[in-house]
Amino acid sequence: MTTIDTAGTSDPARAERGRRAFGEVMTIAAPDDSSPAIARGLIDFVFAEIWTRPGLTRRERRFITLACVADADAEAPIVEHVYAALNSGDLTVTEIREAVLHFAVYAGWPKASRLNMIVDQQWERVNHERGQQVPPPEPLLPLVTPSDPQARLARGEQAFREVNCLPYVPDRDNPYQGAGILNFVFGEMWPRPGLGMKERRLITVACVAFQDAPYPIMSHVYAALKSRDLSFTEMDEFALHFAAYSGWPKASYLDRVIAEQKVRVLDEWRADEAETS
Amino acid sequence: MTTIDTAGTSDPARAERGRRAFGEVMTIAAPDDSSPAIARGLIDFVFAEIWTRPGLTRRERRFITLACVADADAEAPIVEHVYAALNSGDLTVTEIREAVLHFAVYAGWPKASRLNMIVDQQWERVNHERGQQVPPPEPLLPLVTPSDPQARLARGEQAFREVNCLPYVPDRDNPYQGAGILNFVFGEMWPRPGLGMKERRLITVACVAFQDAPYPIMSHVYAALKSRDLSFTEMDEFALHFAAYSGWPKASYLDRVIAEQKVRVLDEWRADEAETS
Amino acid sequence: MTTIDTAGTSDPARAERGRRAFGEVMTIAAPDDSSPAIARGLIDFVFAEIWTRPGLTRRERRFITLACVADADAEAPIVEHVYAALNSGDLTVTEIREAVLHFAVYAGWPKASRLNMIVDQQWERVNHERGQQVPPPEPLLPLVTPSDPQARLARGEQAFREVNCLPYVPDRDNPYQGAGILNFVFGEMWPRPGLGMKERRLITVACVAFQDAPYPIMSHVYAALKSRDLSFTEMDEFALHFAAYSGWPKASYLDRVIAEQKVRVLDEWRADEAETS
Repeated sequence: MTTIDTAGTSDPARAERGRRAFGEVMTIAAPDDSSPAIARGLIDFVFAEIWTRPGLTRRERRFITLACVADADAEAPIVEHVYAALNSGDLTVTEIREAVLHFAVYAGWPKASRLNMIVDQQWERVNHERGQQVPPPEPLLPLVTPSDPQARLARGEQAFREVNCLPYVPDRDNPYQGAGILNFVFGEMWPRPGLGMKERRLITVACVAFQDAPYPIMSHVYAALKSRDLSFTEMDEFALHFAAYSGWPKASYLDRVIAEQKVRVLDEWRADEAETS
Repeated sequence: MTTIDTAGTSDPARAERGRRAFGEVMTIAAPDDSSPAIARGLIDFVFAEIWTRPGLTRRERRFITLACVADADAEAPIVEHVYAALNSGDLTVTEIREAVLHFAVYAGWPKASRLNMIVDQQWERVNHERGQQVPPPEPLLPLVTPSDPQARLARGEQAFREVNCLPYVPDRDNPYQGAGILNFVFGEMWPRPGLGMKERRLITVACVAFQDAPYPIMSHVYAALKSRDLSFTEMDEFALHFAAYSGWPKASYLDRVIAEQKVRVLDEWRADEAETS
Repeated sequence: MTTIDTAGTSDPARAERGRRAFGEVMTIAAPDDSSPAIARGLIDFVFAEIWTRPGLTRRERRFITLACVADADAEAPIVEHVYAALNSGDLTVTEIREAVLHFAVYAGWPKASRLNMIVDQQWERVNHERGQQVPPPEPLLPLVTPSDPQARLARGEQAFREVNCLPYVPDRDNPYQGAGILNFVFGEMWPRPGLGMKERRLITVACVAFQDAPYPIMSHVYAALKSRDLSFTEMDEFALHFAAYSGWPKASYLDRVIAEQKVRVLDEWRADEAETS
């Protein structure tokens, strides 16, 4: 006989759906844990009702999740999600390593340094479990960015405009903007091959939404929508997935910004259309 | 006819339960917002399936929630939950002000400074809405703790042992431990009247679980259980509530620590019983 | 002729400069790691192009870095930077212990508790490596601040005005402001000897910029500039260093606040000059 939990769920199908999704996403069996956080929260909600939704693919949800768990500093979830991303084959080790560099810029080096170590360890584990040698790192492509400082700044300014969908660039005679933003973040990091723009957007928006600084949240949500790298529906879905992994307070702020930036982008698209027609 | 939302819920009763809980907790009507984060996440899960659970009272959940939203730096949720805590009458302004001081210690002064300003603003708003003058605050002096540095340290050492359920105290000849922990945190802050031990435990565990440093999480979960200020069931319920407001990665770490500390505390209680019988 | 480095940079001198800077700052050899985060990010950028810059000394950069890695909760970077600060002789153990107390106030006690343990461990390690006994710590008592509650509050109000460069003090009849800010943070902590004002400013600004609460960021950037404890150039340099260790989103917010507060401080200086001339 099933006892009815009036406060939570009495639906065994929902729990079963959650356990199946857990197995598929995490590539290990769901835990037998009856604590409310795991049974009612993680299985019945996060796996049964978020990971199973359409709107973002499982692979796309992994980039958001990896950024969120690494931001949250919780050791076991970082290990488990890095392992699952590699073991499922959803991400190659080359992609996940490139994601660590992107994450480093938006979350800071200390958190990225931990993530990078865990990637190495879990990549060894996946290969060990398969009875394989760890393959040598893939030969990386020649960088598309120039080494000459002037040319690098110019490339940074071009990428800054393209990525941010903005008509202007920041003043280079400022250490943060010149030596940091133009020279490295946009002059070198964003133009690297190895991750598509959509994946870079997912990592970036997760990090800025976690970090709480209002202007970067606004500008990266705007650029993700304006560039059409993320559709409006995908961005809404992002907010729900992010809520589970970084909590409702941050997600509810993100959700407001998304609503505002949709209006702004729609207005701009309508104005562009009016101009060209 | 029920339309089936394959991605989320097909249960209008669940949404209705969520909207009713939202109204009771937040003291305003639930938003008409169909975005997944709000409709599927906040209403259908956080309000329909977390706030309605037994295990912790609504008043107790407020202390956890206030610590989580203030930790997360999200302006609107802080404003809304401070307003709701005061407007519902669940917390007095004296209690919430004492909670801000406790929060300052465990979350850092900058976050507490923002929370303190919002408490003043929302207390004015609540009084204004009721056509009342804002009553004068309770006076700070006289302090209940000793002024003499030696006596204050001794008081701090005693409170350190009682709050942490530990037989030893840290070396005072260390600025962090002596001037900070013994002199202020346990010598002055914890012994203040105005909040009960259970409320101080709720704020503390929320903050240490947010902050990620492993030893403080372990020691405060242990002490909350060992002191019986929180029951095992209440602590499990805490983890679920915390998951919603600070995200699953941090909550899953907390959940593990809770499981370990329950075993430790049970072992100690059994050993104590064996000794006394 | 430019040799092409297929892994990212075309400048082997840049990688070499980064590896040399790493060795000098970290007091251990740079890792042989070709992952993008380490080779392209940490060595080629953070060490080759940030730590080598003028504008802040290596010792000054350590206070920022220690606050950032402790805020980020990443175990290995905390250990490595505490070790490097002590092993290089850039910071004495007394200074770093005082820095932990200051950090506790602005980042919260749980993070500081972990940092404090690591300082003790690394101080033992440095002494062990040198075949020395760990010397006894400096005694806590007597405190330099008054014991009488009224006198302590008065001392706190004076320090509050001086540190914040403000003409007013907060109302003491509020637990956060009275028992916390005036009584402890400014009544005891800031007036402690053992760290200069510039060092306390570096820790404070790093912590408030990490914590995201807008008012404290504004007020501490303002006070650091207004007091002339940090020059305009040093503050700009701070933003770049901070970006690397706490991520670009928080740094971008800080950079804007710096620009605004420079204007405010310049205006005030001009007005003062006009008045006195």
